Amino acid sequence: MAKLPLYATGIMGTFAILLMAAAGEEDALQKKAQEIFQPLPKNMATEEFPITRERVELGRSLFFDPRLTIDASMSCSSCHQPAFYGTDALPKPMGVKQRPHPRHVPTNLNAGTSFVIHWRGDRTNLEDQVFQALTSPITSGQPDENAVIDRLSRMPGYAPLFKAAFPDEPQPMTLRNIAKAVGAYERTLVTPSPFDAYLAGNQPALPQAARAGLEKFINTGCVACHNGVGIGGGMYRKFGVVEDYWKATASDPIDKGRFDVTKDPDDLYVFRVASLRNVAMTPPYFHDGSVATLPEAVKVMARVQLGVTLNDADTRDILAFLESLTGELPANFATAPVLPPGAVVPAK
Amino acid sequence: MAKLPLYATGIMGTFAILLMAAAGEEDALQKKAQEIFQPLPKNMATEEFPITRERVELGRSLFFDPRLTIDASMSCSSCHQPAFYGTDALPKPMGVKQRPHPRHVPTNLNAGTSFVIHWRGDRTNLEDQVFQALTSPITSGQPDENAVIDRLSRMPGYAPLFKAAFPDEPQPMTLRNIAKAVGAYERTLVTPSPFDAYLAGNQPALPQAARAGLEKFINTGCVACHNGVGIGGGMYRKFGVVEDYWKATASDPIDKGRFDVTKDPDDLYVFRVASLRNVAMTPPYFHDGSVATLPEAVKVMARVQLGVTLNDADTRDILAFLESLTGELPANFATAPVLPPGAVVPAK
Repeated sequence: MAKLPLYATGIMGTFAILLMAAAGEEDALQKKAQEIFQPLPKNMATEEFPITRERVELGRSLFFDPRLTIDASMSCSSCHQPAFYGTDALPKPMGVKQRPHPRHVPTNLNAGTSFVIHWRGDRTNLEDQVFQALTSPITSGQPDENAVIDRLSRMPGYAPLFKAAFPDEPQPMTLRNIAKAVGAYERTLVTPSPFDAYLAGNQPALPQAARAGLEKFINTGCVACHNGVGIGGGMYRKFGVVEDYWKATASDPIDKGRFDVTKDPDDLYVFRVASLRNVAMTPPYFHDGSVATLPEAVKVMARVQLGVTLNDADTRDILAFLESLTGELPANFATAPVLPPGAVVPAK
Repeated sequence: MAKLPLYATGIMGTFAILLMAAAGEEDALQKKAQEIFQPLPKNMATEEFPITRERVELGRSLFFDPRLTIDASMSCSSCHQPAFYGTDALPKPMGVKQRPHPRHVPTNLNAGTSFVIHWRGDRTNLEDQVFQALTSPITSGQPDENAVIDRLSRMPGYAPLFKAAFPDEPQPMTLRNIAKAVGAYERTLVTPSPFDAYLAGNQPALPQAARAGLEKFINTGCVACHNGVGIGGGMYRKFGVVEDYWKATASDPIDKGRFDVTKDPDDLYVFRVASLRNVAMTPPYFHDGSVATLPEAVKVMARVQLGVTLNDADTRDILAFLESLTGELPANFATAPVLPPGAVVPAK
């Protein structure tokens, strides 16, 4: 290196110190993030709900098969569409026979990371959700277990799949096993994102704007609720801590949330905190889909939960962070399975 | 080769002659098949309807996007589901707002090989079908072009796709161009099958039972209508030549077919001959989906079109041939595209 005048080495020294300080701040930010969040696991199997190849294969077929529902027109994938990252782009979906669902569709991607299922937590886990959906008047329209099993029995291709998935059971074709199989499939649907790479130690995996957004996301207080492996999905919270939520959204009607389940006044306007994974791909937002765009949703949250008015620059940075939570669509979700052929004549 | 007694060489000679005779018959069958049928082209582009990468990409997104329809709940893929080889497993589908479609869904796979579109031929080609569907009260429910374009305009991701697909047009977002793009996509959806390999010269590509079935399919007279590249789809024919079709099916109501389009008495009960490609994967059968299984459909056809009562062995062979018409699902159909994000509030 050529010799430099003293003032120049002084400037370079300052620059190096600034760089080091910046690097130190970046490391501190990453360390903080690693305390608040966890990267996605490889899958979401549990001891109670294990994954086997056969259950996943069966569950995947069932997930995409509309023939289980009363008019054979809606499958799990009708609301949880791959093309919309496991959602349907609607404020609220229509169920069978034009019966409206009361709340917005949350994505089924990474859903096994949530501590309960549904906005009001009235499903204990994925398997419970599927089990109840199979005879729900809105989701399925089928009157009982017999009606669903009768449908499946008419398609000869399904019996061997059930036998393979539940080899020890003499009569494996049951609602409980449908729920276990679809649950097993859903527990494979994880979408690791640039933010997961960052949490795992790869600092440059997160673009600079996203790192700035992460810092603001932490410092603004969003992480009080949106934390853990799901960046949300880990607790209940009142929607509208500082201000009634419906004053900031286009909500109609006003949903009382978990109160309608428990009748406990403490649960008034309480919902499960939404996971923010893939949030940029899943508009509209909130339990009623009442806000159409992500910038608007971020501003509403800051206002009604934290009493903060975000300026456009801060919002942009936070959006850059939220966009880093988009992962790749799992191949076994993006690609529809070929279903066991069989025509059904739907019940009227 | 060891020397053999005379009687042994005599036996072997007879055997060789029989083998040669059989080989000669196999060659004759293949030659006949090559006169009657043609293998699928690589795609179904025409001079009038060319394929470009950009049009196919746009068309594929539009095909899977339910946001074009009035309640944003149905896309082309709702009836033409990849999981059912481009059909929906129903006798007749339900359109938007529970408005029933009058006829069974034919697969969109290889559909560009058909000489006209729809059972009654009232759509001249794929593009005409899409164009009319976009404002059909049953298929779409949208009142006019403006309503559809307004929907698309709300999703910022679409404008660049239209610009890329139709680079010379100042206002490329039109119903005509939607139709051209979806048509271009559909013209890529070909499913080459073992039978195509056989037609191209690979005799063993067709299993023995299928070759026996092919011979019966030819000799019974099925090929009078089911011929050409689509093994059907090339002409109109009366359904019920020997006997009224509804005496052999569960048809209700009785559909007068093309007569209702042309009012020409010669068109009474006349329909487009169905293509038999992928027929084993697309139950139920006929214009009204009135027959649930393929063996039954084969027997009905032999009976009402040809006055032939097929025995079970012949039916089995013909089924083996029909199963050889199943090709692999095209990758750009099996896998759903990720759509431009954007929430819609559907019209009431």
